[in-house]
Amino acid sequence: MSKADYKNSQLYRIRHSTAHVMAQAMLERFPEAQIAIGPPIEDGFYYDFDLPRPINEEDLQWVENRMRDIIRGGYDFTEQEVTPDEARAFFKNQKYKIELINDLVAGRVDDMGNEIAQPAEKITFWTQDKFTDLCRGPHVKNTREINPDAVSITFKAPAGAYWRGDEDREQLTRIYGTAWETAEQLEEYLHLLEEAKRRDHRVIGEKLNLFTISPLVGKGLPLWKPYGAIMRDTLERWLRDKQLEHGYLPVVTPHIGKLDLYKTSGHYPYYKDSQYAPIQVDEEEFLLRPMNCPHHVMIYKSEMRSYRDLPLRLAEFGTVYRYEQSGELTGLTRVRGFTVDDAHLFVTPGQLLDEFKKVVSLIQSIFQSLGLTDFRARVGTRDPASDKYVGDDTLWQQATEAIIQACDEMGLNYNVEAGEAAFYGPKLDFIVRDVLKREWQLGTVQVDYNLPARFELEYVAEDNSRQRPIMIHRAPFGSMERFTGILIEHFAGAFPAWLSPVQAVIIPIADRHVDAAHSIAAQLRTHGLRVEVDSGKSRMQAKIREHRERLVPYLLIVGDRDIENGTVSVRLRTDEDLGALPLADFIQMAAGVVNSHSLELK
Amino acid sequence: MSKADYKNSQLYRIRHSTAHVMAQAMLERFPEAQIAIGPPIEDGFYYDFDLPRPINEEDLQWVENRMRDIIRGGYDFTEQEVTPDEARAFFKNQKYKIELINDLVAGRVDDMGNEIAQPAEKITFWTQDKFTDLCRGPHVKNTREINPDAVSITFKAPAGAYWRGDEDREQLTRIYGTAWETAEQLEEYLHLLEEAKRRDHRVIGEKLNLFTISPLVGKGLPLWKPYGAIMRDTLERWLRDKQLEHGYLPVVTPHIGKLDLYKTSGHYPYYKDSQYAPIQVDEEEFLLRPMNCPHHVMIYKSEMRSYRDLPLRLAEFGTVYRYEQSGELTGLTRVRGFTVDDAHLFVTPGQLLDEFKKVVSLIQSIFQSLGLTDFRARVGTRDPASDKYVGDDTLWQQATEAIIQACDEMGLNYNVEAGEAAFYGPKLDFIVRDVLKREWQLGTVQVDYNLPARFELEYVAEDNSRQRPIMIHRAPFGSMERFTGILIEHFAGAFPAWLSPVQAVIIPIADRHVDAAHSIAAQLRTHGLRVEVDSGKSRMQAKIREHRERLVPYLLIVGDRDIENGTVSVRLRTDEDLGALPLADFIQMAAGVVNSHSLELK
Repeated sequence: MSKADYKNSQLYRIRHSTAHVMAQAMLERFPEAQIAIGPPIEDGFYYDFDLPRPINEEDLQWVENRMRDIIRGGYDFTEQEVTPDEARAFFKNQKYKIELINDLVAGRVDDMGNEIAQPAEKITFWTQDKFTDLCRGPHVKNTREINPDAVSITFKAPAGAYWRGDEDREQLTRIYGTAWETAEQLEEYLHLLEEAKRRDHRVIGEKLNLFTISPLVGKGLPLWKPYGAIMRDTLERWLRDKQLEHGYLPVVTPHIGKLDLYKTSGHYPYYKDSQYAPIQVDEEEFLLRPMNCPHHVMIYKSEMRSYRDLPLRLAEFGTVYRYEQSGELTGLTRVRGFTVDDAHLFVTPGQLLDEFKKVVSLIQSIFQSLGLTDFRARVGTRDPASDKYVGDDTLWQQATEAIIQACDEMGLNYNVEAGEAAFYGPKLDFIVRDVLKREWQLGTVQVDYNLPARFELEYVAEDNSRQRPIMIHRAPFGSMERFTGILIEHFAGAFPAWLSPVQAVIIPIADRHVDAAHSIAAQLRTHGLRVEVDSGKSRMQAKIREHRERLVPYLLIVGDRDIENGTVSVRLRTDEDLGALPLADFIQMAAGVVNSHSLELK
Repeated sequence: MSKADYKNSQLYRIRHSTAHVMAQAMLERFPEAQIAIGPPIEDGFYYDFDLPRPINEEDLQWVENRMRDIIRGGYDFTEQEVTPDEARAFFKNQKYKIELINDLVAGRVDDMGNEIAQPAEKITFWTQDKFTDLCRGPHVKNTREINPDAVSITFKAPAGAYWRGDEDREQLTRIYGTAWETAEQLEEYLHLLEEAKRRDHRVIGEKLNLFTISPLVGKGLPLWKPYGAIMRDTLERWLRDKQLEHGYLPVVTPHIGKLDLYKTSGHYPYYKDSQYAPIQVDEEEFLLRPMNCPHHVMIYKSEMRSYRDLPLRLAEFGTVYRYEQSGELTGLTRVRGFTVDDAHLFVTPGQLLDEFKKVVSLIQSIFQSLGLTDFRARVGTRDPASDKYVGDDTLWQQATEAIIQACDEMGLNYNVEAGEAAFYGPKLDFIVRDVLKREWQLGTVQVDYNLPARFELEYVAEDNSRQRPIMIHRAPFGSMERFTGILIEHFAGAFPAWLSPVQAVIIPIADRHVDAAHSIAAQLRTHGLRVEVDSGKSRMQAKIREHRERLVPYLLIVGDRDIENGTVSVRLRTDEDLGALPLADFIQMAAGVVNSHSLELK
């Protein structure tokens, strides 16, 4: 459901109304509470309170039960307009409401903190049962439209809610709630929440030793530990080789550049707020690079180019640094430094359509290989009302048409969204749904007439005239950090064998089997498999449990019988027991799975 | 020859004396010239002059001839002490000499700009023939000790010589000269100079399209173009795989870190002058990292470590940024951003010696593989007179002994040099001589007790006590940039086949052979070979010349007879003609050469 559709939906009204019901119940439990605001949000609603004491489980249970009573009471929601003075009199003991009323009347901001066009002359109240709130609606007609069995509330301390989102103002207690049309929907939603928590890449990343974040290095700057770095290298080599096959050429460029470079490209001051401050060196200023494009442009420009050199596809796993507020930072998915699986294609106008289609098809095949088969495409075009875009109208038109034509010819499932373009050109984003049906914006392909013009790029055409190339920017993963984070959640850490940091653990049953275990490990390694031997002191069953929890695809148990028969006893991390296999058969199976990048283990 | 030996050598006296002879001849050619200073340097000498007009080839020839005359004149070099006033009177028309005399008398600096301990009461003159200079000697006894046939002078504009090396003072004309004991030595030296020029990695890097430097990106920040990036990736993968085999674990860490991190490590403010200014982010300061060690230390510290986890070998191709004066920057060999083939090994005291030897042996095998077989090792110890070192004396002693013991046990050719240690511990440097017998400091191995103490690193020992690990820092290449620069010069661009960006070019004799050429290329690619097809319009001989100049190892010519017989006609870049080989035979040969990292082409 789009945001606009959601705002007009019955579910939205249900949630908004349930927020009022929750506020009513809370005021009954805490008559001295000061109430702030309570909007519907994606998947639910919240309400902020200034409470006389910390809330506890018992309070929550009481409030949730009381909400169901109110809902069952069958109260109408009624709207009423009052004068500002009447509103102030009504809320005389509620300081946050008074502040909201004053702001509305002064024409500053509305109850959600959005700037308003003109002062409010009338204030709207909404009432159900004995509770009245300052609110513009809309609401359901009667609490009976809310399903009492599809409502749930929760408190996550510390919720970090400040009045008006301002860290210098009062800290409030935010109670989250959700409401659905049926109990089954609620249950499914709560299950998804549980699943998402279980799959949280920060939790799995810690458990599987994939990455760490050190306060001394800095927030939003993950350090990839060996197992994470092996996964990352494996992904990178895979994409690098695929790109070489498709005629991409690698380049390597520095992580800083002169400020003038970004002034020429237009990234500075356009992206100033998301960039780190310039670094002064002698008489020059340098920027920690926010993107790789200008560097690749300079490589294009380092030689006289001919039409015979095009398409020129320059690829780099290029690390960039962008400022994000510390509150926004999340594990690998929202960081301050990340490595883009970047490439810039320089093409003639005649090559644009074909090259664009090739890029899209490469991205599709990459997602396919990783089992990310549920995706849609979004064509991001200019918002005609905005002036943040640069470049000639005709070129925007051409580029947009080329993208749409490519999508049509490839039979892509796409929709067009105005305002989602890059500032220099339209783009195609791939929005992938993971196993929990959550949407992630991943790969992007952008068409750019702007940088070639700003840097005065040229090539010598067949007729010896000088022509301007068009650039395609593309990144299938988006970034190594974010993509890995999403893969962790998608697979819940049980990666396909080829991506698993450790592909097999060999468990000797007794000390006398340790030598054989090491010799088997050596054989597996010659077939490119990543293997560990667990010769520790724990009991076999404990070892099996431990390595299954580490989600190692293959556990190979080696005992007397195996050594005698040249076999290994194979257990998958799914706990499936393949029994004793001749070592050569296991190698053939495992190497086959790994080399074919299979999503299965056998 | 060590620097101290050189200063006491006859060659040094010959060069110093020849500088005086050159100054005499120059003053005869330019009686109005102001003379500055003229010291011996490595491989020769120079003298700086303030001339009334630009010098030209004719002047140089005249001066060189006149020098030989003076040398043949058999003049004695005689020393004389004068008072400061006598000296000023003698040099009354030579302003630079007056300034030097004043500085000597005031006890400021000597004629080479070095600070002096006390004011000079007497000034020393040296005279030959009719020329007298302010000078401390030593000189040869008579010009007859100079070989007139082993003397040569040269002028390289713009020499960029400023009086006292100060860009705000007068710009001078620096004439370089060299002098040897025999004409053969001079000839060999001039030949080496020519060779070095021909092998200059900046020239070859440009010609072979390996890298470029863009003023808009920044000085000292090379951009690796596709062919260079392919070489770099190939080198990197090779070392990465080798390291994996040897139990190294990859990590990936960001290029910035909080200033506090470098304060804890002691790199800040110790290395302040070679670092970029901190970047302010919210309330914190970040540094573009000058080294990778602190990041790897934080990965060590992210888990509780046990003796069973050690040695822990964390490896990263980690890019660092260091400030260098713009005048010092040279192509790939002296840059402001470079990628260290870094690793940090965390070991128990009992493992130090063995692990150190393993590191040295890995570095040796790497140099061997690249044909860099002529190297010596230097054990860098503390300068006992300096206070720039940190850490406990006993630990320095232990570390130094461990290094020397390792060198002895491995039978390394090494010498010990005081003052060459890192500030935190002693080290072993590998100094490699290239084909031109030039010495390059490459791989380094350092033993460090300091960072583990500063970061309070620990592991749980077998007896459950907490112990401190020792760190080994090591980088066989030193940096990807510098090492590649040296490889370019060592091989003069004719890289071993496995490192060549393009390993084979297929040249169809006529248009009707183009399809066959592409099909052969596809077959070679399935064997991992990097291949291009030249289907351009030029004639075959021109193509062969062009690709030989690009130093492509294998040129494969394809014509009617080849297609008929399933052969390719193979020419090596050495111009050796291997004749028509069955395609399978060529593939076996070339893939064999590449996969074995051979230095030969067949």
